[in-house]
Amino acid sequence: MVRVAVYGASGYTGLELLRLLARHPDTRVTALVTRQDEAPHVDEVHPALRGRFDLRLENLSPEQVAERADAVFACLPHAASAEVCRPLLDAGLKVVDLSADYRLTDRAVYERWYNITHPDPDRLGRTPYGLPELFRDQLRGADLVANPGCYPTATILGLAPLLEAGLISTEGITIDAKSGVTGAGRNPKPHLHFPEANENCSAYGVGAHRHMPEIDQVLTGVAGGPVEVVFTPHLVPMDRGELCTCYAAPVGDATTEQLQDCLRARYEGEPFVHVVPNPPGTKDVAYTNNCCVYAARVRGRVVVISVIDNLIKGASGAAVQNFNLMHGLEETTALA
Amino acid sequence: MVRVAVYGASGYTGLELLRLLARHPDTRVTALVTRQDEAPHVDEVHPALRGRFDLRLENLSPEQVAERADAVFACLPHAASAEVCRPLLDAGLKVVDLSADYRLTDRAVYERWYNITHPDPDRLGRTPYGLPELFRDQLRGADLVANPGCYPTATILGLAPLLEAGLISTEGITIDAKSGVTGAGRNPKPHLHFPEANENCSAYGVGAHRHMPEIDQVLTGVAGGPVEVVFTPHLVPMDRGELCTCYAAPVGDATTEQLQDCLRARYEGEPFVHVVPNPPGTKDVAYTNNCCVYAARVRGRVVVISVIDNLIKGASGAAVQNFNLMHGLEETTALA
Amino acid sequence: MVRVAVYGASGYTGLELLRLLARHPDTRVTALVTRQDEAPHVDEVHPALRGRFDLRLENLSPEQVAERADAVFACLPHAASAEVCRPLLDAGLKVVDLSADYRLTDRAVYERWYNITHPDPDRLGRTPYGLPELFRDQLRGADLVANPGCYPTATILGLAPLLEAGLISTEGITIDAKSGVTGAGRNPKPHLHFPEANENCSAYGVGAHRHMPEIDQVLTGVAGGPVEVVFTPHLVPMDRGELCTCYAAPVGDATTEQLQDCLRARYEGEPFVHVVPNPPGTKDVAYTNNCCVYAARVRGRVVVISVIDNLIKGASGAAVQNFNLMHGLEETTALA
Amino acid sequence: MVRVAVYGASGYTGLELLRLLARHPDTRVTALVTRQDEAPHVDEVHPALRGRFDLRLENLSPEQVAERADAVFACLPHAASAEVCRPLLDAGLKVVDLSADYRLTDRAVYERWYNITHPDPDRLGRTPYGLPELFRDQLRGADLVANPGCYPTATILGLAPLLEAGLISTEGITIDAKSGVTGAGRNPKPHLHFPEANENCSAYGVGAHRHMPEIDQVLTGVAGGPVEVVFTPHLVPMDRGELCTCYAAPVGDATTEQLQDCLRARYEGEPFVHVVPNPPGTKDVAYTNNCCVYAARVRGRVVVISVIDNLIKGASGAAVQNFNLMHGLEETTALA
Repeated sequence: MVRVAVYGASGYTGLELLRLLARHPDTRVTALVTRQDEAPHVDEVHPALRGRFDLRLENLSPEQVAERADAVFACLPHAASAEVCRPLLDAGLKVVDLSADYRLTDRAVYERWYNITHPDPDRLGRTPYGLPELFRDQLRGADLVANPGCYPTATILGLAPLLEAGLISTEGITIDAKSGVTGAGRNPKPHLHFPEANENCSAYGVGAHRHMPEIDQVLTGVAGGPVEVVFTPHLVPMDRGELCTCYAAPVGDATTEQLQDCLRARYEGEPFVHVVPNPPGTKDVAYTNNCCVYAARVRGRVVVISVIDNLIKGASGAAVQNFNLMHGLEETTALA
Repeated sequence: MVRVAVYGASGYTGLELLRLLARHPDTRVTALVTRQDEAPHVDEVHPALRGRFDLRLENLSPEQVAERADAVFACLPHAASAEVCRPLLDAGLKVVDLSADYRLTDRAVYERWYNITHPDPDRLGRTPYGLPELFRDQLRGADLVANPGCYPTATILGLAPLLEAGLISTEGITIDAKSGVTGAGRNPKPHLHFPEANENCSAYGVGAHRHMPEIDQVLTGVAGGPVEVVFTPHLVPMDRGELCTCYAAPVGDATTEQLQDCLRARYEGEPFVHVVPNPPGTKDVAYTNNCCVYAARVRGRVVVISVIDNLIKGASGAAVQNFNLMHGLEETTALA
Repeated sequence: MVRVAVYGASGYTGLELLRLLARHPDTRVTALVTRQDEAPHVDEVHPALRGRFDLRLENLSPEQVAERADAVFACLPHAASAEVCRPLLDAGLKVVDLSADYRLTDRAVYERWYNITHPDPDRLGRTPYGLPELFRDQLRGADLVANPGCYPTATILGLAPLLEAGLISTEGITIDAKSGVTGAGRNPKPHLHFPEANENCSAYGVGAHRHMPEIDQVLTGVAGGPVEVVFTPHLVPMDRGELCTCYAAPVGDATTEQLQDCLRARYEGEPFVHVVPNPPGTKDVAYTNNCCVYAARVRGRVVVISVIDNLIKGASGAAVQNFNLMHGLEETTALA
Repeated sequence: MVRVAVYGASGYTGLELLRLLARHPDTRVTALVTRQDEAPHVDEVHPALRGRFDLRLENLSPEQVAERADAVFACLPHAASAEVCRPLLDAGLKVVDLSADYRLTDRAVYERWYNITHPDPDRLGRTPYGLPELFRDQLRGADLVANPGCYPTATILGLAPLLEAGLISTEGITIDAKSGVTGAGRNPKPHLHFPEANENCSAYGVGAHRHMPEIDQVLTGVAGGPVEVVFTPHLVPMDRGELCTCYAAPVGDATTEQLQDCLRARYEGEPFVHVVPNPPGTKDVAYTNNCCVYAARVRGRVVVISVIDNLIKGASGAAVQNFNLMHGLEETTALA
């Protein structure tokens, strides 16, 4: 039984993580850590968890957490996360970090895109990237895992096999992403006010979204040569779900069938990635840890579409999957 | 050409009012008044109005407004509204007040429910209530009109004819109301954050909603005897629209057909109230100034259902209708 | 390991049931029965189940089902359901019937409301009603359980304790219900077409909904005297969730606090019913088997609000809860 | 006063057209034509129009229509439309055709994409394309106008000025479009059933959408050289609104500012096209005839975003704008 603490339990990824942990037979949640001084019961913060945990959120020091828990999920904003992870890792706990802090391997890239000094730079470049479908071997038994961003997850799962196989070019990749509103977090903001976001669709972070260098980095590693994507996320009036439509230039004459065969071969046996013959919808994977991937050749271009639940495969489900691998548990535990 | 100023133009009722005024051939909007010091162009505040008005919001004194305008729509919170209306009325402008300030005739009732000293008590009891279907004669040529609350509008239009005709009892009236989220205003709040309000339905203000004494007052006047309703509003995940399901005890044996006949007779010739043979949906009246009303006898009770667009017949459309009556214009101008 | 067959697996209750059974450690789904001749893989019918079951839907005879399964969940329309349940029960299988066929104890009432001859009248009146919070003892070990309707579940859980305690009158109970659209089933209909149902709210089945006699029957049993409710359901633009606002006349002077105390005492120790101090929203229980109940005294009336997920506590979750009781398993298995 | 008949009045474009015509001071709607034999009152088909028109839908012959009307709006499926337009044009009526029948100038392209023999091929290539911002001179006084498709409208308004100015390449244009569900019409279909389309986002018609050759044709004309776009539309869970994100290769070094300047210069004085400094949302133009356009340079690519209301600027609003030009009326009549 692994004793687990959750930092940042009050947000949407925290909620989703707790939903999954409530069903995990090998863990016991022993601490919900907040940076605020009130200590509400988790039922007040997440009514949907009523009856699952008899815990309050608490403002605990790393020392206190280290006494109560063997492992930690950190659902904190960037920078705040590494500051907390550092002492916990030093104290011997295993950590799944859901923030961006350990994803980028190059400190300079991190500091440029996040506009901040990295609080724990020594672990950059040594921390495995928590996408089991690509890096499973590095994740088994790891002490710290950088849980991927939601857009990178969907995008990389769609494009990596085609880049590996040399079926698409590293140049000119364009990613048009659509996300449900939970992706923007739980803090009320004017443009996320119900009557503003409802019945509305808009692009945001055009040319400036921080998942762009993360996608570049992983696809560059996969392709063995520099990839620089154009990435445009959009807000869609739904709670959850994420769809990435990726456009790439083919190398050679691969047909729709050959593109799909390549994906199918790559993901054979993967429990959570499914290659589908028709364009998938986000609802096909909502409330699951699945990713569905589709590819087609259109007028001399390659179109790849992948869908995930941004809070599960795009965050908390992946975190549990990584946790399972880190602890030598069955990878699909609590996720099936 | 009536020169018009709008107070509180940045909210949803302000937006809807401006949409209607943009089509009104007999008015010219000359001032958009705000209590803040920035002076954004109306296009920044309401992108949906782009190309309609070349105006900025301005923090104007009542004197400045009185110079520029002949009439005012006040879309302000209670108390703030009467404070502004008072000098404008004294300066000779005509005012449609969309707040609650002049609706209740009894100062004590107002002060108890709104928990505040009334800023302009002398006008209470002398200000007509802006429901043309009931009080048209008092509205023609009036200088000040108290524009009704959205829930009272829907409720009263449904119940008043049956009370007038003695077909339902004054006792035991229960109103279960459902409203779109624009009814809660434009300020972001945690429970109105998209992922909280979307896919959610909940009651609010149980036993405490301020439209309750307003409904009591008007129905009491209509019925000629004391009415005290139980009123429970609910939030429904949609932008706009309001549905009131009213339950009453019949007096006598009126059938569904007789109830509907009573309503039809009462509203014959009314341009905006339609008695319908099947339960109406809010979308039947969305983006219109219409109210649809339905009645049925169910197991010895009377069920009356009425629907309006909360921002139009429940606010800005009614305000324009009242404005037209106050200025001797065709009542349906800009509303058809 | 109980071998389980599901009839009517292609609908929304079927989907939800399969989601739950995928997590149930003591069952194995061995047959998905359809009345159509195509035999699609369950992944085609329910993409959200991808990776969970390697099964096709099959048009099987009761004999074939009896060979493959020990227990059956029947998610079929009324009448069709009893026709199938009858031979399965005779063959010794345990059955949870999610249709209305075995809920009403009085054949004449059934035949009047459902306008059909009952296909298995002998089991009426001898089949326990699957609301464990009221009838747990009858459900343990039972061979056939009548799974309750969604509206009756929410309504009865809210009102039964107050009737039992004599705090509210049996007369004049009014129930105003709001439901997400999955409650109307998976068959496309004009009024459920997205652009018709979205941004819309309407009443339906006014005075004619078949859950009315079911509520009457159970509340009559609880109260020990005749109850006849007025029940008005409404469609709300959301996938799932159900909120019942119940209005009743108090007997005596019970305060809000006393009403809530009564509910709390009644449901102490219940794993899935939670008495809450503020009006609950449907999202508080979405994707859970929970029911949240709230009560207040308002102007001399009692208002009781209860929320459930119509597909879980209102259908498939309750079915699994009943299944667990029927098989002597831990009641909360697969539901926590 | 132009007497107007509307074919296909029962769909969503018909509804929206009638809403606009209800406010048009220079028209009188004299016939609503249907191909079915029932003759429902328009209020039954479109409750939202209640009180606007006292008309029934009628199955009228072209001769009957020609007697009653001077002009026609045809909101019919392709092929069905040209069959009706032909005799009406021959009888001397002016026609705005909202179908695809007269948009493509090349009969072979039409017949390949629509898989049908064109019913009125002689008018192909002689019929002006109803995008006033590009072809206003051809539309003034025209007898027949081919009203553009919704996706072409948004796309062309965004890209045409940059192609005209030589700022983007004719090669490699990719259009990722998002549309509300009314774009899919009013006929119920399984994937448009509320619980399927709600909380869902998916691509459709990948590589096969019929608006692709239409976009090609117009952009080719504008650019003076062959354009062949990759176009992927997506369904977004909202009633209306359409957002096109277009990706193109720059020619030269135009900055974001220069791209926006080019657009602003091109659309100066246009009543309905607004160039905006930040990415627009569909709600910025909902229920208006506006198109908002935005452009930016991102990592060596050009991103152009444009939004329209698919039913107004994308269909019925454009149709009224064209009608006004055809009849020598003020272009903005009924649209401001």
